[in-house]
Amino acid sequence: MPAKSPVIVDLKFIPEEVETALKGAFPDREVINRADAVHDDRDLSGIDYAVVWKSAPDLFDRAPDLKVVFSGGAGVDHVLTLPGLPEVPLVRFVDRSLTTRMSEWVAMQCLMHLRQHRTYEALAERREWRDLSQPEAADVTVGIMGMGVLGQDAARKLSVLGFKVVGWSRSKKAVEGIETFGGDELDAFLARTDFLVGLLPLTPETRGIFNAGLFAKLSRNGPFGAPVFINGGRGGSQNEADILNSLDAGLLHAASLDVFEQEPLSPVSRFWQMPNVYVTPHVAASSDVKALFRHVEQQIARLESGQPLQHVVDKLAGY
Amino acid sequence: MPAKSPVIVDLKFIPEEVETALKGAFPDREVINRADAVHDDRDLSGIDYAVVWKSAPDLFDRAPDLKVVFSGGAGVDHVLTLPGLPEVPLVRFVDRSLTTRMSEWVAMQCLMHLRQHRTYEALAERREWRDLSQPEAADVTVGIMGMGVLGQDAARKLSVLGFKVVGWSRSKKAVEGIETFGGDELDAFLARTDFLVGLLPLTPETRGIFNAGLFAKLSRNGPFGAPVFINGGRGGSQNEADILNSLDAGLLHAASLDVFEQEPLSPVSRFWQMPNVYVTPHVAASSDVKALFRHVEQQIARLESGQPLQHVVDKLAGY
Ligand SMILES: NC(=O)c1ccc[n+]([C@@H]2O[C@H](COP(=O)([O-])OP(=O)(O)OC[C@H]3O[C@@H](n4cnc5c(N)ncnc54)[C@H](OP(=O)(O)O)[C@@H]3O)[C@@H](O)[C@H]2O)c1
Ligand SMILES: NC(=O)c1ccc[n+]([C@@H]2O[C@H](COP(=O)([O-])OP(=O)(O)OC[C@H]3O[C@@H](n4cnc5c(N)ncnc54)[C@H](OP(=O)(O)O)[C@@H]3O)[C@@H](O)[C@H]2O)c1
Repeated sequence: MPAKSPVIVDLKFIPEEVETALKGAFPDREVINRADAVHDDRDLSGIDYAVVWKSAPDLFDRAPDLKVVFSGGAGVDHVLTLPGLPEVPLVRFVDRSLTTRMSEWVAMQCLMHLRQHRTYEALAERREWRDLSQPEAADVTVGIMGMGVLGQDAARKLSVLGFKVVGWSRSKKAVEGIETFGGDELDAFLARTDFLVGLLPLTPETRGIFNAGLFAKLSRNGPFGAPVFINGGRGGSQNEADILNSLDAGLLHAASLDVFEQEPLSPVSRFWQMPNVYVTPHVAASSDVKALFRHVEQQIARLESGQPLQHVVDKLAGY
Repeated sequence: MPAKSPVIVDLKFIPEEVETALKGAFPDREVINRADAVHDDRDLSGIDYAVVWKSAPDLFDRAPDLKVVFSGGAGVDHVLTLPGLPEVPLVRFVDRSLTTRMSEWVAMQCLMHLRQHRTYEALAERREWRDLSQPEAADVTVGIMGMGVLGQDAARKLSVLGFKVVGWSRSKKAVEGIETFGGDELDAFLARTDFLVGLLPLTPETRGIFNAGLFAKLSRNGPFGAPVFINGGRGGSQNEADILNSLDAGLLHAASLDVFEQEPLSPVSRFWQMPNVYVTPHVAASSDVKALFRHVEQQIARLESGQPLQHVVDKLAGY
């Protein structure tokens, strides 16, 4: 039996979390963690597997024999654009913990906007005890663009919290208790939406989709008069100049952004300190690194025992 | 048929919301809204019904013939202490909208603590892009004290969001997916609890229950090392000096307080601006005034057609 192929790990996560998670992972094969300078001059030819997240641009040059590339996250736009990506299966990360974390973030953002959290924080800052007229969740329709693994979980949880929920995706979905719209029904979906939640992958079709033209089609019948924009998908899907203009003009009431056109977000960006914008640094649903390695182990075990890989990306569709 | 008794309305809510809600309410009887100075000298004797929230202390003196008193909120401590409360049924407000609102507030507070919202806000203030190690909901056990109408709804929703949930009440409850504890099992419940949520009524037994002795019994095995205290019940149940000391000493990691020993909270209170405390001005679950009047109409209809009233308070137990 030939020796099992090593696994290349090239993950720009918190380094200590990667190291901790690697203890005990891949017990039957070598791990080449590229964060460790020891491996800098290592010959990577002949190696079958790589787990990558914002990996070094020379990876595929140096490891020309990969049989599978694993994305360290649910999104793969960062892999699809890497130079020299080989014509082999690209597997994305799908995981209960990651899904749950995204829904935590989405639910928290929707609740903070609904419950006028920033206004109450401003009142507290002034030590002022005063209650505001308060709509309830049922007064707000949350529209989710992207009804995949993440969108469907968020939809279900928002619905349990009492929000009305509508969903839009390329192929129309059947989700209990939620009104869904297919790819060609975007305008009807937008007209229903008070809080817009983006959970789309970044693809040629979704690049820049969240722009002034789209915002103009959102409902203005919600309790805050103008819609709220919440993006947990990818920054490349949003037009930030349009978001700023729409916020300034009151065409958007508020926003929550976890992702940005350029990451890290520039220190001079106005988003950091706008009173009606919540900024988080692409942490809505961080991969649990232990769970990621478990998932990669499982997929390698499937492959090596002749079963098909799961969660393989459609490179043409881009997700 | 004798004329139908008027209803006295004495609600210290947002006045415009009361006025709006009164339009169309009680179509078959007169409404005496005491916020309206027109009624200042009105003889209130012979009137059967009053709906009260922080009503004027002379109300029961001036209206000696009440047959039912309706609380404008879910809690009744503010009514039970009114001078001259007559020996007639006291009905509290139980309502889908109020319940939902409390669960919105509880879920939002739990999520903000879990997701280290204030730390991310401080990073944004410094325009710093940095991710923190992030536990997920399943790493946190939320313990709810008070598994009544509100506690059970919050428990179910927190559980859907992924939190582990345990509950404590005088009589032990059976709630699917949630471990529950009875009145004499408080210590075992506290030892399990990372985030403590107070949804208790204020009674002689619950006065001051949230004190240093109780906090010392909470779990310190949660992801933040020390427990978080969240109170949406009544301020009289908490010892604020103990909360401050526990926060200062790191025996509590953080807190969310909607209710206070003295309301409005004094402008000099330290709570307003502590970095690890969220303050809201007793708005966790405001009564929807329209729904309140619908509920009172229904209960009056029941009474006048010979059916028993619902949600009658046990004055001895105090809730
Ligand atoms: N911020 C973070 O921390 C974070 C973490 C994880 C993931 N993400 C982002 O979230 C994205 C979604 O993740 P997921 O696991 O839910 O992906 P998924 O299961 O592949 O779902 C993607 C959804 O988007 C829809 N979609 C894609 N292109 C579309 C188009 N052109 N028009 C309409 N609908 C389109 C898909 O429609 P069909 O159902 O018809 O295919 C599907 O419903 C990831 O791609 C990633 O970029 C962000
Ligand atoms: N902040 C706000 O905006 C807001 C809004 C609405 C209500 N509230 C407060 O929330 C409270 C709870 O409302 P609710 O509708 O859920 O009331 P509820 O249905 O009467 O439930 C009260 C719960 O507390 C438990 N309990 C009472 N005394 C206890 C004791 N000595 N030891 C152990 N458990 C005890 C009860 O136990 P049993 O089940 O065994 O009876 C019950 O589970 C209200 O009383 C009110 O003060 C606050």
